[in-house]
Amino acid sequence: MAKQERAVRTRQSLIQSAAEVFAREGYAAASLAHISRLTGVSNGALHFHFETKRELARAVEEEAARRLRTITEDAPVDGARGSALQGLVEATHGLMSRLAEDVVVRAGFELGGEPALGATAGVRRYWQEWVEDMLERADREGVLADGVTPERVAPAIVAATVGFEVLGGRDRGWLSGQRIDAFWELVLPQLTGEAV
Amino acid sequence: MAKQERAVRTRQSLIQSAAEVFAREGYAAASLAHISRLTGVSNGALHFHFETKRELARAVEEEAARRLRTITEDAPVDGARGSALQGLVEATHGLMSRLAEDVVVRAGFELGGEPALGATAGVRRYWQEWVEDMLERADREGVLADGVTPERVAPAIVAATVGFEVLGGRDRGWLSGQRIDAFWELVLPQLTGEAV
Repeated sequence: MAKQERAVRTRQSLIQSAAEVFAREGYAAASLAHISRLTGVSNGALHFHFETKRELARAVEEEAARRLRTITEDAPVDGARGSALQGLVEATHGLMSRLAEDVVVRAGFELGGEPALGATAGVRRYWQEWVEDMLERADREGVLADGVTPERVAPAIVAATVGFEVLGGRDRGWLSGQRIDAFWELVLPQLTGEAV
Repeated sequence: MAKQERAVRTRQSLIQSAAEVFAREGYAAASLAHISRLTGVSNGALHFHFETKRELARAVEEEAARRLRTITEDAPVDGARGSALQGLVEATHGLMSRLAEDVVVRAGFELGGEPALGATAGVRRYWQEWVEDMLERADREGVLADGVTPERVAPAIVAATVGFEVLGGRDRGWLSGQRIDAFWELVLPQLTGEAV
């Protein structure tokens, strides 16, 4: 394996181990020595890739954001009437099953609530903006009921999905497709003015 | 001031300072020395009341749970048709304004997501059970629409309120009455089968 390829793999392994340790112990309690040991590399190798724990946390957030984008980009939003809401529903399901199985995505979301890292909240913010964007598209497609505006309904939908994500960090049952279905059944009729 | 009364006041001040430090820096990063300094007492005085940071965190959670109970007990739930849902709506508003102004309640909720503290999640759990209880009462009052069961809708409502709480920890705008109104406008018609 070429030297550069090995470096890329080590970097990915460090991000994976860091996500595991952050998710289990929290960012503040996590130690770099523990992360390098879990990855099976020396402290020096870790420091070659990441000078500080903060840099490593940022890399976890960036990787989580990249994976989240693959979910949102997979959503079949093509401008056809109803496609934006359909895409939003599918992406929430995609996000929740990804959160259940992928610790990098889970840790990336959780790092947004970490006081020691300051005010970025990168992954949650990306998700929030995407949800807002989908509701604006749904509005342009003409599927929102009279009196329903994207600005008014977006916070409720963002809050619910963030709530499932946070509660799912402790108990994967919160991420089940059944619970997400039940949420949309409760909300979609009022969004569109139609029975589901 | 009698010695005992002073001890009670010091204990309350320590809980208040601890909540401020936990909310700002996170539990893991918070130092007992910082908390005693902020309270204006010696480390020895702090240790007289709380032997460990964990004990102090538990005291913050208990105080937050006590305050949350005053909100849920204020909800006018008397068994009359519609009173349980009305009480639930009022308590969510009460909780969000309390979260906006009271750092002990805010820190108490956030400590439930703290990995270092283990699996208790005391305050969020109390809130979840209360929401479930109100929806069961609403069902017994006969106000839930056909096909709506408390078990199916409770997770969505718990998730949304936890989401508002978590996002509100970073940005108080998430706790505004307007956003909570918008959430209930979206959800109540489907819950009850009636327009709001």
